[in-house]
Amino acid sequence: MTDIQKIAAIGGGVIGGGWVARFLLNGFDVSVYDPAPEARQRTEAMIEHGARALNKLTMIPLPKRGNLTFCDNLQDAVSDAGFIQESAPERLALKQSILKEIDHHAPSDALICSSTSGLMPTDLQKDLRHPERLMVGHPFNPVYLLPLVEICGGDLTSDQAKKTASDFYTSIGMKPLILRKEIDAFLADRIMEAYWREALWLVKDGVATVEEIDDAIRYGAGLRWAMMGTFQVYRVAGGDNGMRHFLSQFGPSLKWPWTKLMDVPDLDDDLINTIAEQSDDQANGMSIQQLEEKRDDGLVAILQALKNENWGAGNILKDYEKILYEKAVRQAQEKTVDYSKPIELHETTVNPGWVDYNGHMNESRYLQVFCDATDALFRHLGMDQEYVKAGHSIYTVETHIRHIQEVSQGKPIAVKTQLLGADEKRLRMLHILYRIDTEEVLATGEHLHVDMNASSACPFKPELKAAIDLMWTHHKKLPVPNYTGKGIRSLTG
Amino acid sequence: MTDIQKIAAIGGGVIGGGWVARFLLNGFDVSVYDPAPEARQRTEAMIEHGARALNKLTMIPLPKRGNLTFCDNLQDAVSDAGFIQESAPERLALKQSILKEIDHHAPSDALICSSTSGLMPTDLQKDLRHPERLMVGHPFNPVYLLPLVEICGGDLTSDQAKKTASDFYTSIGMKPLILRKEIDAFLADRIMEAYWREALWLVKDGVATVEEIDDAIRYGAGLRWAMMGTFQVYRVAGGDNGMRHFLSQFGPSLKWPWTKLMDVPDLDDDLINTIAEQSDDQANGMSIQQLEEKRDDGLVAILQALKNENWGAGNILKDYEKILYEKAVRQAQEKTVDYSKPIELHETTVNPGWVDYNGHMNESRYLQVFCDATDALFRHLGMDQEYVKAGHSIYTVETHIRHIQEVSQGKPIAVKTQLLGADEKRLRMLHILYRIDTEEVLATGEHLHVDMNASSACPFKPELKAAIDLMWTHHKKLPVPNYTGKGIRSLTG
Repeated sequence: MTDIQKIAAIGGGVIGGGWVARFLLNGFDVSVYDPAPEARQRTEAMIEHGARALNKLTMIPLPKRGNLTFCDNLQDAVSDAGFIQESAPERLALKQSILKEIDHHAPSDALICSSTSGLMPTDLQKDLRHPERLMVGHPFNPVYLLPLVEICGGDLTSDQAKKTASDFYTSIGMKPLILRKEIDAFLADRIMEAYWREALWLVKDGVATVEEIDDAIRYGAGLRWAMMGTFQVYRVAGGDNGMRHFLSQFGPSLKWPWTKLMDVPDLDDDLINTIAEQSDDQANGMSIQQLEEKRDDGLVAILQALKNENWGAGNILKDYEKILYEKAVRQAQEKTVDYSKPIELHETTVNPGWVDYNGHMNESRYLQVFCDATDALFRHLGMDQEYVKAGHSIYTVETHIRHIQEVSQGKPIAVKTQLLGADEKRLRMLHILYRIDTEEVLATGEHLHVDMNASSACPFKPELKAAIDLMWTHHKKLPVPNYTGKGIRSLTG
Repeated sequence: MTDIQKIAAIGGGVIGGGWVARFLLNGFDVSVYDPAPEARQRTEAMIEHGARALNKLTMIPLPKRGNLTFCDNLQDAVSDAGFIQESAPERLALKQSILKEIDHHAPSDALICSSTSGLMPTDLQKDLRHPERLMVGHPFNPVYLLPLVEICGGDLTSDQAKKTASDFYTSIGMKPLILRKEIDAFLADRIMEAYWREALWLVKDGVATVEEIDDAIRYGAGLRWAMMGTFQVYRVAGGDNGMRHFLSQFGPSLKWPWTKLMDVPDLDDDLINTIAEQSDDQANGMSIQQLEEKRDDGLVAILQALKNENWGAGNILKDYEKILYEKAVRQAQEKTVDYSKPIELHETTVNPGWVDYNGHMNESRYLQVFCDATDALFRHLGMDQEYVKAGHSIYTVETHIRHIQEVSQGKPIAVKTQLLGADEKRLRMLHILYRIDTEEVLATGEHLHVDMNASSACPFKPELKAAIDLMWTHHKKLPVPNYTGKGIRSLTG
């Protein structure tokens, strides 16, 4: 972990503003310098987009926002910064001059990362006094949401600087990829550029519209690329015959005229007009802001879906949530369980896979959430893996659910749990499911659990029994809702 | 909608087998011809992969599987087929000869679609007797899950044939994209090929490993490509300045050396070895089957996430579910039932995804099976999409489950349903879940359902009410088990 407290952002456009949002929402103080008159408004809007997206992305509370300062000159922004992110326009001479000014005014050990999409760090650092702390830190739009950041050092960049930048980016939820070699456009943009040039040809040659070309990706290969790059995709497609065998089939097709990329299309006014007009058609009346929110909501949903699959970008989110959780725990001190009221051990959001065709959480998922809350309670009481391995397993014999309110995808939900009874081998409990944001009660679940391997000779293990007894001593004093213990009544009439 | 009843699949490899799975799981009878000795086993495995994925993808029951026949020769497979999908190896002369044989033996109005990734339909159709019904129908792996299919006709293909094929593919949950022009590799593969050639250069030049190149996509741009192609992505990135302004910035970078695609890498043994070895490292011990299941689970999760966002491939899933729902309604209504005893409308097997760490069906899945049985009853009684659209929706207000016996993965299970009561807007019912093979009772579920939009002025719709009354007239005479109507008792002691 780094000791970076204060960050300077030089440039507040789409990329720079995205950086500011990510830094600030992760609790860092940020000074911004951007001479454009609209920079302040644009950056503030970007922060609100970022806040909207990150608050949907995770239920774990974000740290308290850092302080945001807009500076009138570069010197004020960088003079006390431990980390500087430069996102100026993509012109080599301009960037060189800005970086030189940063180098001059910043503390000599402050890290400097350039957001450039393709300029070489060796060219960017050559006139600096402290070139060893300059590298490329290339993010992807929206910067507050996409995990990837390519780190590329130049000839003079130190390994320690790259390592420190990588740790810092990781701490704010990113996936740093440290490049082995310096190359124009790094890795991702080379592939994006190949795609882009081919797509331009398809429009220029009148083969397809921009909407058709986009559809050819987003309904097919693009869905896979959210999970796996092309090498892993081909490994799977190759099946048990192996990657080597699969690859050998590609020999011939590489000679076929399957791309026009031997040549570069001329992006003249005609082609620009064609694309701009087709793009207007494709947008079908949606404003940029509407498209942007759709993009963010979709990315949030995809990241959450992948988190539940323990895969790729979802694992980055999971790691990020651990960091956030630790921060939250530290900020709130140790959470002590208070047995004088129903306890809360489980919270989640309504998963994309849990909703039925009308957009509400399917009724069986209510029970799933109650089961998860029961598991959390059992763990809290000390029923760990050892207990299960010793042949004990607590079985649910009866469940009574009262559905009260529907709830839709993404809503934050939590469960309060009250013990209604406990004896040598049985537990009776009440779960109350509610929405965290509105406090509406969604359902109640009443459950009877029995330790299947308990017998009169072998009831709950003593330590577990003691923990249950302690909780029950308090919970038996709580008022018992009058809907418990009742069955489903006959219909009359 | 087409009147295709019977489908022939010529070739049962990764692509052909994927087609067979999609056709069969959508209720079509399929004849397969593939001379490879392992084709049968491979195809059957693919069908099970597809069943696993589709059963996770949607909670709406799939139609009853079609009949699968493996044929010893091509003639038997195609002679009574209304639709033929050819997925032979990618060699022009071979495909031409197979297509000629299909053309000769198939009914003259049967549609023929080739799965070729890049051969031109004009070349494929030129020697056919009925060339107007030949086109390319190019899918993406896994075929049972990814929606995209590119339809490309040749000079002699009729518009009607393309339209019929497009409607058919739509009916089995796909997104057909009819191409305007015939071009090598169509649309998607041109872009995939550009990406692939660039990626090969990066490995060949030692810039990065296959894992790093994959990571450069799946943690960044790939997440966007599941939603938006590159044109829409750039439209959003361009912001309020507009697409035209944004594009004009690209002029210079197109001249920069940002891809090596002016040249094509030589896929020699050295490069194949490097990729194969790096790919082994990347897999990190996961088998092909594990990777394949991960890929499918991830795609399912992404499709579900996008469905809930009403976006892109998620909308295709939503449309598909409407089609499945209507099929399920038709099947339920066609089924004749005997009201003199509890009725049986739902059977399934315990899904691999339903069991917890000790191998038993998780308790929440008991409720899921009861919900599916309830849905089947409602469809049987005539609650179709129109009813739901008219603002009616039957809501479960109470559930009481008694868990009696555990059940493990793969066991066949079914539900018997008895009405316990019915009035103007409420239904009380009892489900009994049992194992089909042993007849053991596994659990009972008692449920109270209410039509939320019913009121004293507007109760159940008359037709639905009549169907309920008919069933209730008989079921009110059945004995009522004495465990119904009871609540969960207090623990004494």
